[in-house]
Amino acid sequence: MTSDRDTVAIIGLGLIGGSIARDLVSRGVRVAGYDVHAPTLEQAWDEGIVRERLDPSLSNLDGAKIVILAVPVSAAPSVLETAAKHLSETSLVTDVGSTKRRVIAAAESLSLGERFVGSHPMAGDHRSGWYSARKGLFQGATSYLCPTRSTSQEALALARELWTLLGGRPVVIDADDHDARVAFASHLPHAVSAALALALSRAKIDLETLGPGGRDMLRIAASSPDIWTAILSENSDKVLATLAALRSELQGLEKALSEPDARSLHALLSAAQEWAREKR
Amino acid sequence: MTSDRDTVAIIGLGLIGGSIARDLVSRGVRVAGYDVHAPTLEQAWDEGIVRERLDPSLSNLDGAKIVILAVPVSAAPSVLETAAKHLSETSLVTDVGSTKRRVIAAAESLSLGERFVGSHPMAGDHRSGWYSARKGLFQGATSYLCPTRSTSQEALALARELWTLLGGRPVVIDADDHDARVAFASHLPHAVSAALALALSRAKIDLETLGPGGRDMLRIAASSPDIWTAILSENSDKVLATLAALRSELQGLEKALSEPDARSLHALLSAAQEWAREKR
Repeated sequence: MTSDRDTVAIIGLGLIGGSIARDLVSRGVRVAGYDVHAPTLEQAWDEGIVRERLDPSLSNLDGAKIVILAVPVSAAPSVLETAAKHLSETSLVTDVGSTKRRVIAAAESLSLGERFVGSHPMAGDHRSGWYSARKGLFQGATSYLCPTRSTSQEALALARELWTLLGGRPVVIDADDHDARVAFASHLPHAVSAALALALSRAKIDLETLGPGGRDMLRIAASSPDIWTAILSENSDKVLATLAALRSELQGLEKALSEPDARSLHALLSAAQEWAREKR
Repeated sequence: MTSDRDTVAIIGLGLIGGSIARDLVSRGVRVAGYDVHAPTLEQAWDEGIVRERLDPSLSNLDGAKIVILAVPVSAAPSVLETAAKHLSETSLVTDVGSTKRRVIAAAESLSLGERFVGSHPMAGDHRSGWYSARKGLFQGATSYLCPTRSTSQEALALARELWTLLGGRPVVIDADDHDARVAFASHLPHAVSAALALALSRAKIDLETLGPGGRDMLRIAASSPDIWTAILSENSDKVLATLAALRSELQGLEKALSEPDARSLHALLSAAQEWAREKR
C-alpha cells in the first residue's frame, strides 16, 4: 500500500475476496492469491488479477505486507493457523467475515493480536464466487474494523487505509458489539428471508407471482446455505436474541390486526415507516 | 379500447391510477380522471394525461366505457356506490386493490356484478402518489382478475384486454383464493418488513449501516401506513394465518440454531434457497 513493491495476499477468491482483488489491481496494487478451488485461482491468474499464486501450505505468503482472509467464517481460524507460520514481513492480517468474536480469539491465541484487525464490509450479494466478484462492491459501505486487545496503531491505520482505498467507510467497533449489531442488521434479515421462503414454499406460492416488494424480501433467501449456516451458527447467541426481538414485534402486529379498530396497526406501521425512510 | 372514441375513467391518480393513466395515454386511449386531492387532478390535466376532469359526484362519468377505481381498498366500496349511479354506458368496472373479497361483495350488492371484475396487478413501489407514477409499471406483472358470481364474458374479456394492453399477465382467480395467496405473496412480506423495522429501531440500529441485503428487507417498511393499514385490516383473517405460518418457520430456525450441530440449519437454508432461486 505504501510502496509499489508491496503485495497484498488474498486467501479465498469468492465474491468478497475476488472483488477486493479487482479493486486493488485497478488501483495499482500487486495481488497474490489463493483459492481452495484450483480453477478459480487459475481464472484469476488468467485474467491478470492475481500476479502470484500461493500454494495450499501458504508457504510463499512471506512477501505480503497485508494478508486478507476471505474464506467462510467457519474456515477462518484454521486458515489463520496455517498462514501464521509465514507472516514474517506482514504488517496487517485481516479477514472479511460476518462475525468477529471467534476470529479475533483465534488471532490472539496464535499471538497475532498486534498485527490483526477483524474487518467486515457491509456489502455482498445473494450470488457468490469469483464470477460474481466486481469492482466497486465496497463503495460507500460501512466497513467495520474490530481490533484485538493488542492491535498496534500501525495495523489499525493500515486497515483503515485499506478499506478507504476500497471505497468503504471504516467504523472501529468492539467485536462483541459488532456481532450484536450485525445480528440485527444482517443475520436477522437473512434468517427472516429464509423463513419467508419456507412459508411461501409450504403454501405453494410461486416466486414469479410475487410483486417487487415480495421479491425484495425473498432475494437473500437465495444466498449460499453453506456460507450462511456458518455465519448464523457462529453467531447463534446473538441471532437468537434478535429472533426473540422480532417475535415480540410480530406479536404486536398480530395483536393489532386482531383489534376491531385499526389505530394500533396504523401506529405500528407509521413507526416502522419513520425508521425505514430516514436518510434512504 | 375498441374504438378511438372510447374513454377510460380512472378514479384516483396515485401510483397505480397514475401509472395506468400514463400507459393508456401512451397507447392512444382517452383518459378521464378524478382525484380527491385537487392539485393532483390539476397536475394530471396540465400534463395532458387526463383529458376530462370528473367532478366529486362523478356525475360526468357516463361516457366512460371502462371505469377503474384506483383508491385505497377501504375507500373502494363507497366510491363504487357513488359511481354506480353514472355507469349507463360502461361495459367494465374494475379496481386495483390488494384485497378482493370486500369490493366484489360491494359490487354485487350494488347490482354491478355482471360488469364488475376485481383486478390486482402485482406491481407497486414503496413510494406513492402521482409523482411516483410511471409508464411500464405493470410490464410483466402477474395481474389477478377476480370475477363476481355474475361477471359477463364480455366484461371479463375487456378486463383481460385492459391488463394485457398495460403489459401485465392476466390470471383469473377466485376472490377468496386471491386474498389467501396475496396474504402470503405480498401482505406477509409487508408485515414482516415492518416488524423488522420496529425491531431494528428498538435496537438503535441505523438504516445507513445496513448492507444491501438488509436494505432490501427494509425497503417496503417505508410504504404508506395509510394504504397498508387498510389492506392488512381488510384481509386480517388471511394475514393472521400467514403470520402463524411464518411463526412456525421462525421457530424451526430457532430450534435449529439451538442445536449443537448445524445440519438442521443447513437443511432449512438449503430448502429456502431452492425455492427462492427458481426462475429468478
